[in-house]
Amino acid sequence: MNETKNKANIYVIAKGAGVSVATVSRFFNRKSLVKKSTRLKILDVCKKYNYKPSRVASAITTKKTKSVALLVPSLKDPTFGELVSGVEFALSENGYCLNIFNTRQSIDKEMEIIDIIDNRIIDGVIVSGVYGSKEDKIFISEMLRRKIPCILVDRYIPGANIPYVASNDRLGGEIAAKFLLENNHKRIGIISYDTKVHIFKERVEGFISILNKDKLKEEFILEVPIKFGKIEEYIYKHEDELLKSRATAIFTVADTIAIFLIRFLLENGFKVPDEISVIGYDDIFYSKFMFPRLSTIHHDMFKLGKVVGENLIYKLENGKFKKRKQVIDPTLVIRDSVRKV
Amino acid sequence: MNETKNKANIYVIAKGAGVSVATVSRFFNRKSLVKKSTRLKILDVCKKYNYKPSRVASAITTKKTKSVALLVPSLKDPTFGELVSGVEFALSENGYCLNIFNTRQSIDKEMEIIDIIDNRIIDGVIVSGVYGSKEDKIFISEMLRRKIPCILVDRYIPGANIPYVASNDRLGGEIAAKFLLENNHKRIGIISYDTKVHIFKERVEGFISILNKDKLKEEFILEVPIKFGKIEEYIYKHEDELLKSRATAIFTVADTIAIFLIRFLLENGFKVPDEISVIGYDDIFYSKFMFPRLSTIHHDMFKLGKVVGENLIYKLENGKFKKRKQVIDPTLVIRDSVRKV
Repeated sequence: MNETKNKANIYVIAKGAGVSVATVSRFFNRKSLVKKSTRLKILDVCKKYNYKPSRVASAITTKKTKSVALLVPSLKDPTFGELVSGVEFALSENGYCLNIFNTRQSIDKEMEIIDIIDNRIIDGVIVSGVYGSKEDKIFISEMLRRKIPCILVDRYIPGANIPYVASNDRLGGEIAAKFLLENNHKRIGIISYDTKVHIFKERVEGFISILNKDKLKEEFILEVPIKFGKIEEYIYKHEDELLKSRATAIFTVADTIAIFLIRFLLENGFKVPDEISVIGYDDIFYSKFMFPRLSTIHHDMFKLGKVVGENLIYKLENGKFKKRKQVIDPTLVIRDSVRKV
Repeated sequence: MNETKNKANIYVIAKGAGVSVATVSRFFNRKSLVKKSTRLKILDVCKKYNYKPSRVASAITTKKTKSVALLVPSLKDPTFGELVSGVEFALSENGYCLNIFNTRQSIDKEMEIIDIIDNRIIDGVIVSGVYGSKEDKIFISEMLRRKIPCILVDRYIPGANIPYVASNDRLGGEIAAKFLLENNHKRIGIISYDTKVHIFKERVEGFISILNKDKLKEEFILEVPIKFGKIEEYIYKHEDELLKSRATAIFTVADTIAIFLIRFLLENGFKVPDEISVIGYDDIFYSKFMFPRLSTIHHDMFKLGKVVGENLIYKLENGKFKKRKQVIDPTLVIRDSVRKV
């Protein structure tokens, strides 16, 4: 029986029913377009071979495969694990499959991926981790030119005509500052990744806007490179500045920075939060496990993934996006790394 | 131009060249099977429409799509991020695409996924995160019955006739024990996940075998549930046992346990490693960033992913697996969490 099944394909069915391959394909996808007598003939042959249509047959007529590609710049960073998980959830709930492409932050790799997507049978693309560089813009416009349905997640490229799902990073910065002020901190430092990147700029600006309302100014802003291997080196390079700072609290624009900062402080004999408070951003997997447990801003990557997946599916099934712009509000997570002064 | 291109498909090309769809498909996949005069006709029509073949056309004749599915039980656990990264690396190096399916450790979900894979155009399957349960065995035999090429990674199911790539977990346990003995620890505790699971059983047995050679016996073996949310609760439940134990060092079969254990010890005023040493297993992302930096066994999930991806591709392209069994040796990573007694 299995043997028979394995030998059947759309050609065998078409030949057996005395119709064209296109008719068989139409039969599996839009039965209403096939005459009833023809339908019965095809059905008979299918039964005989115990044949179930593959997505190949389906894809010929509908040009749809129910596959979506997710482009990520890294798979090792735990933040992207959450994102992948959210996207996969939305897709599998709707019978779609997830294809993962790792761009490795290289434009050559990105262009290669576009060719693969274009030649392959993928219905739409979710792009994450772009930073708004010139290369990113080339990449996005190439996808738009090729009419590949695509949507950005967790990033917004000013000026690019592409829908997106993002987090309200400015609000997150504001929430972090308000929390420190409520805990009576008056002397506050900031450690950020490159503030030319839109999301970090927003977080820092939101944070400072609240300090300024209270007539406060940040004690220092230190920028560290976005490469994990380099963060620690930079923090140690600015050791004097950090240790001599009068700051009672430090805001980091990412938990990954907070992790290094707290270890640096502990290694230098500072008690966290007794002597210095730290608030992070992102609420990554480890934040709740580290010592002390990190107070942070919950940047819900799972939800972003779920919402962007749902929006792209909406576009694929209804011809247009549900919304061109969706913004998810972050929330405060209070744990043990901030104390009241 | 784009319009013209968008309108072209394998039927348009076949019609334009006055040949069958199957011939066009053959032309794109095995040119040698198509007469030269026919080839030239097809080529002309393709040029006219600026048409590039899709994988759909390719898949009809070859029944291959250069797509591989990876089944994972969770996408949030950072260990799987490494695995996905390694598999994606091997696939993209060889022009294959990666489809991710999250089984959510549910047999119903797994059966649903088999149907999707079987109906869809996927060449082979990599299975991770199975525990050798009855359900896992049903799942594996269903894939074998349907003749879906598949391979296990990071797990080995005794008795299942399926190739695998695994880590030498027994050796890892031995290495951890030797390292503690070299640092003069004589009173040693063990915290493990369920030792009925093959990999944890191996790690613990390897560890104990070395202790026994030195005429030592473990001070305690504590088993904690594999759910992150529960580990901490269990550790606190065994607080007395842990704090009153005479152990100078504790081996945990996973870094995720070590993270909770170290926080528990620090919260209870113990200095790590000054008063108690901890050695983990896995070398997850966070191990090198935590305080103190975790000494651990490097369980190379990226490499496992890369090797399993390469082996499956070998099977898809050569009809059989390169090896039925591949074992990767773990290595010791010395950081700051173990001191010399």
